[in-house]
Amino acid sequence: MKALAILGSTGSIGTSTLDIVDGLPEQLRVVALAAGANLDRLEAQVRRYRPAVVAVTREVSARELQRRLGSRPSEVCWGPAGLERAAAESGADMVVSAIVGAAGLLPTMAAVCAGKDVALANKESLVMAGELVTREARRRGVRLLPVDSEHSAIFQCLGGNGAARVRRLLLTASGGPFRTRPRSTFASITPEEALKHPTWSMGKKITIDSATLMNKGLEVIEAHWLFGLPVSQVDVIIHPQSIIHSLVEYVDGSILAQLGVPDMRVPIQYALTYPERCENAVPRLALDRVAGLTFEPVDREKFPCLDLAYQATRQGGSAPAVLNAANEVGVHQFLAGRIGFDEIATLIHKALDGVPGRPLTSIQDVLDVDREVREWLERH
Amino acid sequence: MKALAILGSTGSIGTSTLDIVDGLPEQLRVVALAAGANLDRLEAQVRRYRPAVVAVTREVSARELQRRLGSRPSEVCWGPAGLERAAAESGADMVVSAIVGAAGLLPTMAAVCAGKDVALANKESLVMAGELVTREARRRGVRLLPVDSEHSAIFQCLGGNGAARVRRLLLTASGGPFRTRPRSTFASITPEEALKHPTWSMGKKITIDSATLMNKGLEVIEAHWLFGLPVSQVDVIIHPQSIIHSLVEYVDGSILAQLGVPDMRVPIQYALTYPERCENAVPRLALDRVAGLTFEPVDREKFPCLDLAYQATRQGGSAPAVLNAANEVGVHQFLAGRIGFDEIATLIHKALDGVPGRPLTSIQDVLDVDREVREWLERH
Repeated sequence: MKALAILGSTGSIGTSTLDIVDGLPEQLRVVALAAGANLDRLEAQVRRYRPAVVAVTREVSARELQRRLGSRPSEVCWGPAGLERAAAESGADMVVSAIVGAAGLLPTMAAVCAGKDVALANKESLVMAGELVTREARRRGVRLLPVDSEHSAIFQCLGGNGAARVRRLLLTASGGPFRTRPRSTFASITPEEALKHPTWSMGKKITIDSATLMNKGLEVIEAHWLFGLPVSQVDVIIHPQSIIHSLVEYVDGSILAQLGVPDMRVPIQYALTYPERCENAVPRLALDRVAGLTFEPVDREKFPCLDLAYQATRQGGSAPAVLNAANEVGVHQFLAGRIGFDEIATLIHKALDGVPGRPLTSIQDVLDVDREVREWLERH
Repeated sequence: MKALAILGSTGSIGTSTLDIVDGLPEQLRVVALAAGANLDRLEAQVRRYRPAVVAVTREVSARELQRRLGSRPSEVCWGPAGLERAAAESGADMVVSAIVGAAGLLPTMAAVCAGKDVALANKESLVMAGELVTREARRRGVRLLPVDSEHSAIFQCLGGNGAARVRRLLLTASGGPFRTRPRSTFASITPEEALKHPTWSMGKKITIDSATLMNKGLEVIEAHWLFGLPVSQVDVIIHPQSIIHSLVEYVDGSILAQLGVPDMRVPIQYALTYPERCENAVPRLALDRVAGLTFEPVDREKFPCLDLAYQATRQGGSAPAVLNAANEVGVHQFLAGRIGFDEIATLIHKALDGVPGRPLTSIQDVLDVDREVREWLERH
């Protein structure tokens, strides 16, 4: 039986993970939960799963949770140290890293350093600190198992064989809500329009990233680190139906693809049970009722964020962390109505050009870059 | 370096195999060739590849070939014993079994019994004698590597993991030339019409099988034996573009598919180099220039041959061999203008009902059934 520490347990990935735990009581159990603001949901989860360790963001939340739980035996801790304790010292075999944003970086690295396999949903761990995290994982013999549907698809298509005989990885993109919208109207896109995603239901930040295609840019960076291939061997293709989750083209011309209904429980479960596969309640894909699978190239003029991600990866060092921070700032300003949709890329471009690059030697370095970019953008 | 015995070297699979050998001179070499009537092509192949053993069907051909080759050192043999010698005693590491029809049975079994891995293109080895051949392969620890594009696709999607976590295998079918033709007109289909296949260029027998969908029926039987799953877990889906070569649906709802241009060199090469993959000159699939991938269920009323194959497999014993022989007779009679297109299935149905079933204990048993069915059909 695999013991899980679920960091970000009240979010979308966290609750789906617990759904899977419910369906596989013989295979999975929960030894640690960590969450941020949603104390009610966390309390209910603790009562149900009785983890040894519970971590929350703030000390005041920890006190409140302790009060509510009364004599229940979970250890409640808080702050970055609390997260690290949940990740590294809770007796988990695997850490589900599903905290959103840069806050997920330290506990992911702590899990890796403690020799825990990581089911990785936190994008920033690879986007901002891919070199550090993957180097440490290799050194410790730790598995980084992708939770994202695209990277899980690639992982499945690789069949555990690594990327040695791969010609290229092909990430599919739904194309977002503006795939067919003329580029000339991009300046007038409203946050409301951008928040309507055709296929997946997700948080606001990632929905805007899907509209700018920066989500694919970030996925290209993640794929580069996860599978050890240069970004020149990572391509993106538009596939509006979101049925094929990604593909691998091998050197012999053979292409493997992973398909299914768009349901995050499939990739999450695969990360949790790998190399096994288990039954679940996910609806089956009725391929003969699918209207047709289509593909088209990305319009890179219309979606410049994608090329910025390639550029940042080729620059290396701190550049992807700069890209990530500038994108967060840009999305935030767009949602607040302060900049236009098309100015998100402009702002990222400005940061990549203006913030001096440097090598990254520690997670603290990465977090420093993140803060510096935000400060720099306030001044420029 | 892998030493190959290529049985059926002058046919379509055989010449493609030699193309691959030409492209991989460091990995592959030829130690035996066997062919039937095309003596000119065989002679050229022998001059080029200098195999230790050459086998032909008839003694007179062997004498002629020896005369033409003069002092060249290849040993020329003939008949079933010659084929077995090429398969089992030529020093091959792998036997490419690409002789068409029941004649491929004995040398395939000889290769397996000699402990050689087999790249299997001969359908009859599994359709007629699947139980015998796969049992012997298991006993000897011999690999049966599929050459057929559909089975290679499934083999690739399984990633060498076997079929334990598979919900079902999904064989794709182009649907043949009569996919959209009304069933009421099937009696009037001419051989000329049936010989026009939309995607693959193949021999006459297999082209008619593609038109009746018996080719998928035979592939269902082969998949059943190759991957050790009951036919209830082997499905067929129409996919007119022939880009996805087949799919595997796992118990967790995840589906893996193998795609590529329709070029037999990809699956043949994979069988030859497995578990490696090597570069080749096969054109790459430009997915973003594919108009769209569509799927539809098989119309089983219109194509009754498919259900007959399922029925024969469930009956077991000699039934699949009866099905295969009756189908050959039916296709032959249709091509000769003696029966209608829709009567091929009628004739198979009659044979499955009329010829008494029995268990098969040897390849000779299988060949006896094959002969008996043909005799029985002449009398009925």
